[in-house]
Amino acid sequence: MTVVSNKGIILKETPKGIPKVDEHFELVHRTIDIENLKLGENEVVLKNMYLSLDPYIRPVILSNPASVGKIVFGYGLSKVVKSNNPNYKVEDLVYASTANIGWEEYSHFKSDAAFTLKHVNKELLKDTPLNHHISLFNVGGLTAYAPLMSIGEPKEGETIFISTAAGSIGQIVGQIAKIKGLRVVGSTGSDEKVDFLLNELKFDAAFNYKKIGIDKGLSKHCPNGIDIFYDNVGGETLDITIDHCSRFARIIMCGMTSQYNITNPEEKYKFKNIDKVFLKQIRMQGFSAPQYKGTDFEKACRRDLAEWVRAGKLIYKEDVSVGIENVAKGFVDMLNGKNIGKAVAKLSD
Amino acid sequence: MTVVSNKGIILKETPKGIPKVDEHFELVHRTIDIENLKLGENEVVLKNMYLSLDPYIRPVILSNPASVGKIVFGYGLSKVVKSNNPNYKVEDLVYASTANIGWEEYSHFKSDAAFTLKHVNKELLKDTPLNHHISLFNVGGLTAYAPLMSIGEPKEGETIFISTAAGSIGQIVGQIAKIKGLRVVGSTGSDEKVDFLLNELKFDAAFNYKKIGIDKGLSKHCPNGIDIFYDNVGGETLDITIDHCSRFARIIMCGMTSQYNITNPEEKYKFKNIDKVFLKQIRMQGFSAPQYKGTDFEKACRRDLAEWVRAGKLIYKEDVSVGIENVAKGFVDMLNGKNIGKAVAKLSD
Repeated sequence: MTVVSNKGIILKETPKGIPKVDEHFELVHRTIDIENLKLGENEVVLKNMYLSLDPYIRPVILSNPASVGKIVFGYGLSKVVKSNNPNYKVEDLVYASTANIGWEEYSHFKSDAAFTLKHVNKELLKDTPLNHHISLFNVGGLTAYAPLMSIGEPKEGETIFISTAAGSIGQIVGQIAKIKGLRVVGSTGSDEKVDFLLNELKFDAAFNYKKIGIDKGLSKHCPNGIDIFYDNVGGETLDITIDHCSRFARIIMCGMTSQYNITNPEEKYKFKNIDKVFLKQIRMQGFSAPQYKGTDFEKACRRDLAEWVRAGKLIYKEDVSVGIENVAKGFVDMLNGKNIGKAVAKLSD
Repeated sequence: MTVVSNKGIILKETPKGIPKVDEHFELVHRTIDIENLKLGENEVVLKNMYLSLDPYIRPVILSNPASVGKIVFGYGLSKVVKSNNPNYKVEDLVYASTANIGWEEYSHFKSDAAFTLKHVNKELLKDTPLNHHISLFNVGGLTAYAPLMSIGEPKEGETIFISTAAGSIGQIVGQIAKIKGLRVVGSTGSDEKVDFLLNELKFDAAFNYKKIGIDKGLSKHCPNGIDIFYDNVGGETLDITIDHCSRFARIIMCGMTSQYNITNPEEKYKFKNIDKVFLKQIRMQGFSAPQYKGTDFEKACRRDLAEWVRAGKLIYKEDVSVGIENVAKGFVDMLNGKNIGKAVAKLSD
């Protein structure tokens, strides 16, 4: 069995609006002969175990015409199965950055790209489940923790509102905020997810924005205003929430999922409430997780999240699509808000 | 001469758009008998020397229906001429907050309001001109310095863009930024003010936005992007400038003069570029000077500004209207952008 299946998923065309599985993606059947593959200096072959299915893939990768006809770029957790690189041994578990691996079963790292692989923390692996390492102990955890601490500066007794609260990042933000003594309110898109937020994550309040809308939801559940808004949605959700913010509120701009599927700039949302950012002395700040690499926030994040997971104070819910055949569906479902928790694809054990 | 003139200016009606001198204001002739005036406990009588004519008076005071038919609330520098308060002696120079004094020659402080009066720094008065104490060594200086340092976090070599750069606050911000080694670019509304910025304040670049527009002005004068934007204008100026900001830029929201004269909410400017605050990891933050009172920023501000003025590194240009009769005209001219430097009214020596 030296030749094995190496199926992958190709982008057929750049989508307008939310992509459709059959229209925009194609499963291609390929093989890879690992044993006889000749590796150049420093090259490695990875068996991809988990792919992380994240909203940013939509605007960053799928909108790029250069992506058409190629395996979709991915990001995930992989195992080294062949190596000609002294830094990576067979069986090592590594994170591969976007543009290094793709939506495929195996990835052959050419040239020096392998140097961008990062080892999974072995110490932490001993007493935490592997699937927590895809995102929680990696970019996802950092994306939640670092801006919440550095931009949000949470104080006990304050109220935080989180949009897409049952998603990949929202669930971590909410639980950290609970641990820090805040009143935590979340919006999400189904009653099932409201239950998850209230009963599993122990949010103080949660509402289905599709039923009551953001404005009414906030009037009801944040009657005394919002001190921190962790936003994944942008657009009208952000605009309305500005109106509900208290003086000196902090708005952490983590994403703009409402805008990712808009291709015509004229359709972009126009904000009415920016004068209130000024009038209420609000701080509104965008970030990207890599800016925290190597900072004290990253160190504290790794330490605190591991401690909270071990102590049972923080859970991490995943929505797993199994097999390369289901990656595109899992991704599109996530864009349509069908996931509860972090959307991942599991390709192998 | 125990009875003296105490003319004042009354708001006739709340204006729509920019107020007009004759339509919205009325000079009223009153007198005050200082010698025979009986003061209650803690009361004082002030002779108002300077009034500070600031844009915020338009939305905060003139738009308030409760202001109609009354002396316009003011803010300024006054001299105690009669006192029944142990904290204030005759001849003391004090700052009176908005709502305590008004656009009038004398103000009689009733009840305990006098306790909100603040003494002018006597030490600093010894070797600095009195008119610098109206704003530069008071709220104006703090408004420029504290957010520039705390929100802007200026670094040598960065580019700062300042809107209404030849105004009250812009001129201070620009000079501080020069002292800190930044490249300083300003927009303003006349060629005369462009000259002032380039030749007197030594800005690196300045342009007349009425001639070339903000977008073209920034393309020309900030070809490598903007690291700090100190904004007094809001609306379209802010929106366009977001587009010219660099990654990790800081936007200091000091005012929204473009929006103050809008009374119909439908006419408020709608922002197109807020997604770029997220995409470029920009920090956008409103502030009001009082939030810095008692902080280290305030202490550093007092120390640095005094040192720079004494060393001749910082000048402070004023646009002075003389006499109570000219207060309304000076204020309206300021709203119309006719002032170069800080608009003040001088009521007495």
